[in-house]
Amino acid sequence: MLASDLVAASIVTIMLIPQSLAYALIADLPVEVGLYSAILPLIVYAVFGTSRTLSVAPAAIASLMTASALSEVSNLHDHNYLAAAIMLAMLSGIFLLLFGILKLGFLSNFLSHPLISGFITASAVLIALSQVGHLLGIQASGSNIIEIGQSLLLSVKSTNLYTLAIGGSVLVFLYVIKSSGETAMMKLGMKKRLASLCTKSAPAVSALATLYIVYVFGLEDKGVLIVNTIPVGLPSLSIPDFNLSLIKELTLPAIFISIVGYVESVAIGKTLAEKRGEKINNNQELIGLGNANIASAISGGFPVTGSLSRSMVNNDAGAVTQVSGIFAAIGVAAASLFLTPVLFFLPKATLAATIIIAVSSLIDFSVIKKIREYEKSDYYTILVTILLTLFLGVEAGIMCGVILSIYLHLHRTSKPHIAKVGLLEGTEYFKNVKRHSVITDPRILTLRPDESLIFSNANYVEDSIYDYVRNDNKIAHVVIMCSAVNQVDYSALETLEKLSISLFEKHITLHLSEVKGPVLDALNRVEFNKELSGNIYFSQFEAFNDLKET
Amino acid sequence: MLASDLVAASIVTIMLIPQSLAYALIADLPVEVGLYSAILPLIVYAVFGTSRTLSVAPAAIASLMTASALSEVSNLHDHNYLAAAIMLAMLSGIFLLLFGILKLGFLSNFLSHPLISGFITASAVLIALSQVGHLLGIQASGSNIIEIGQSLLLSVKSTNLYTLAIGGSVLVFLYVIKSSGETAMMKLGMKKRLASLCTKSAPAVSALATLYIVYVFGLEDKGVLIVNTIPVGLPSLSIPDFNLSLIKELTLPAIFISIVGYVESVAIGKTLAEKRGEKINNNQELIGLGNANIASAISGGFPVTGSLSRSMVNNDAGAVTQVSGIFAAIGVAAASLFLTPVLFFLPKATLAATIIIAVSSLIDFSVIKKIREYEKSDYYTILVTILLTLFLGVEAGIMCGVILSIYLHLHRTSKPHIAKVGLLEGTEYFKNVKRHSVITDPRILTLRPDESLIFSNANYVEDSIYDYVRNDNKIAHVVIMCSAVNQVDYSALETLEKLSISLFEKHITLHLSEVKGPVLDALNRVEFNKELSGNIYFSQFEAFNDLKET
Repeated sequence: MLASDLVAASIVTIMLIPQSLAYALIADLPVEVGLYSAILPLIVYAVFGTSRTLSVAPAAIASLMTASALSEVSNLHDHNYLAAAIMLAMLSGIFLLLFGILKLGFLSNFLSHPLISGFITASAVLIALSQVGHLLGIQASGSNIIEIGQSLLLSVKSTNLYTLAIGGSVLVFLYVIKSSGETAMMKLGMKKRLASLCTKSAPAVSALATLYIVYVFGLEDKGVLIVNTIPVGLPSLSIPDFNLSLIKELTLPAIFISIVGYVESVAIGKTLAEKRGEKINNNQELIGLGNANIASAISGGFPVTGSLSRSMVNNDAGAVTQVSGIFAAIGVAAASLFLTPVLFFLPKATLAATIIIAVSSLIDFSVIKKIREYEKSDYYTILVTILLTLFLGVEAGIMCGVILSIYLHLHRTSKPHIAKVGLLEGTEYFKNVKRHSVITDPRILTLRPDESLIFSNANYVEDSIYDYVRNDNKIAHVVIMCSAVNQVDYSALETLEKLSISLFEKHITLHLSEVKGPVLDALNRVEFNKELSGNIYFSQFEAFNDLKET
Repeated sequence: MLASDLVAASIVTIMLIPQSLAYALIADLPVEVGLYSAILPLIVYAVFGTSRTLSVAPAAIASLMTASALSEVSNLHDHNYLAAAIMLAMLSGIFLLLFGILKLGFLSNFLSHPLISGFITASAVLIALSQVGHLLGIQASGSNIIEIGQSLLLSVKSTNLYTLAIGGSVLVFLYVIKSSGETAMMKLGMKKRLASLCTKSAPAVSALATLYIVYVFGLEDKGVLIVNTIPVGLPSLSIPDFNLSLIKELTLPAIFISIVGYVESVAIGKTLAEKRGEKINNNQELIGLGNANIASAISGGFPVTGSLSRSMVNNDAGAVTQVSGIFAAIGVAAASLFLTPVLFFLPKATLAATIIIAVSSLIDFSVIKKIREYEKSDYYTILVTILLTLFLGVEAGIMCGVILSIYLHLHRTSKPHIAKVGLLEGTEYFKNVKRHSVITDPRILTLRPDESLIFSNANYVEDSIYDYVRNDNKIAHVVIMCSAVNQVDYSALETLEKLSISLFEKHITLHLSEVKGPVLDALNRVEFNKELSGNIYFSQFEAFNDLKET
């Protein structure tokens, strides 16, 4: 068991080292901060988290959100920039921990899948675009597609060809390995699993190859930007300074980072746990992630979340328990102690190419087409989220996405489908008069609202009933068939009471049928049957038989 | 018909004159502004509105909201205060008109009944409390219960006893007339309808009586505050000045006023229309109210909405068409032209007493108890709305109430009831195994989620299924019985697809049964049956028979 965890950890570590450096680059932080964020958080998550294979360390989207949050903090000097990143990790950790203690894990359910996938796609595009500058050896920054695009266009003329050559080669190499490396190696007689794991070491291989080339040919003198001196040793532990005005500016971004990080991590953790027949606990995950972020902050790191690619590799490589995470942390710690002098000549362009290839698998526009075919309102959600994230940045994107998806959900429940139903001859079933040939009685109007009766649709249901009654003076009974009504909230209760009185004044009796147990219990608590002019029937068949004879 | 309208209009006018003066007092505006707001708006609403009996002019809650909005506008001089009130009416009108043109009438459905009734009760308490100062002849102001309470306590020592005597007498007189005037007059041989209408003229009677007393005894010299000179004549028409910084400050309050005013007006209009077998059109109502508010602004008035008390009287007094509203406008115009010199000596305490009695009928704490018995989440909504409105003011109250009721709705749908069901022997019905004695097959797990499958509960439903599967290795088929599923959104679709794959890896097949037409149509559009490891059965009975034989 320990042996399996050790093998998995070795492979994860080989991925983790270049990724940590690269994600620090996304967040505009010194590369060693990436390494620091991949030691203590891994260990702390292993202790507190419930997923056995989730790899909690720097990840792409959280790094982008960190960059975006820090770019909005006013008056930052270089030194303060790092302090702000650390504070962001601290705040995210505290919020996650708080959500966990308050058992608010269900909050993540309010982010719909179209919203999340739109947000991830747009973020990945922003990340890839933000790395184009490093690939060309020019300065380019910004927190949305317009800003980054403008700054790229401004300085594209000063492209460094050596940098481009290195970055371009790594990009092509990684792309080829990713798209056909596994098949090629299998043709050469390698086993599938080994071939698959080998492809994961491609970023480490290209890092070593390019830093060697830069070193041998002295390319740093030709203007190729390298990561330069990385401090040797482990991070020192310290509590971050609590600067109130900084905390105020970082609170909202920290909440966004913690929620998005949590949603991503839990989605990954759940998928893996289901495969393994294990279970993860949402609220305990919040606590695990919260502590991991606090640990990151204390050890001089930035916000961390679960990473899809590394967690999958960890799982595929045979990790059995969380001990694999602890081994990976030891691997990164060893790299911080002994490998940093070697990394001196590592070109930033290599890291940029690694990032671009890594996030390209997060970009998925094909889902948009499927969503459009499936449902209009989810389609608008994903479109708006993508566009706003690209053009206004990550925070505006996720915030408007949440508001829009909740609004569209309410709008949808506000005009439910209401079927006029009749008896299917020879059965006890009542079906839509428009779809089936059914028996009806002109004196009985039976309507089946296909939705719970709640504040957002109570008026609509009431209006629909009046529309029938106003145009047909033969109606003596209105029956609301409640087979699809999972809830009647207080607004709907008042509407039903008012409806009963006002129909009664027109000599029309109001009845309910097929009311579900929990709904009936609530109605009985307020003695609704006394307010209702008619009856509450167990089945619609009973209602129809009873009323047609009178 | 014209005659009936004329009679109704006369009675409404007698109520409207003191009410208009009093509501201007709530908004801290010169009393003539109340009269101006009760001329053109009535006529314009009669032309554009769809309710035949709704009386659109100054009303209590909108006046309070006006006062609250204006108190927050920074750096207002006396002159600007009136200009800001006029601009507030203009903006409310523009928003209402815009909502109407965009057909956003359904937006009002997002305000639940507990939210509205809590808000009205708390606002009425604030209004009554804000008038206590006028009743005692002292200065007292504030936009929440703490501010008003403090300012009352500070100056209660300087109470003017003459004022208190007048205000107190009017209060007692109006209270007695309201609670038992009708019965008493009927005992004296008056007909019920006439007696009922006579009680409505009590505020006008007390106004005339007290202004006569003040005049005769010269009480204005003893410190009794009177309304003083009211300009004679009709309001002049003018377009308000568009001051951008003022508009910015008033936008949010204007949106609140327009939404609350619309919700109240439509509720009143609908109740009356239903009694009369008429119909009101929500979007046309927005246009009617919008134009009425713009008309109010142009004629120097403040925000107007439909008033419950006057509309009921208008209806009961026999109004047949909107012409009744036009007659009432003529009545108020005549009062502005000829009656204002008489009103010189009208004590403000009389108006304050009128207001307190009028709003007391809006205060309804009894509903809280019923809501508590009926449903917890609506109970929290009404409590929070009342407390926040009282302690933080009208805007915070309504905003937090909306957020809370939407949050609670989502929270409720996020953990739906999921029943494990079995076959009721001798029938084709499938019922909850916990409530009924039913036939089950250990190889088949049939679950019936009592809620639409959407983003907020997709995870929960998935987790519930795994909980069953993880603890029972005999299960070979999982059937989701969709009889209560009115919608499967894209998030839930993805969850079902993932579930199907992951259960299949455990040699468990996933099926659906009793899928509703519209849901099935959507699933077919994306060929969900190809993704599903099992079948989609028309009925649960068919599913059970098919699967138990394999």
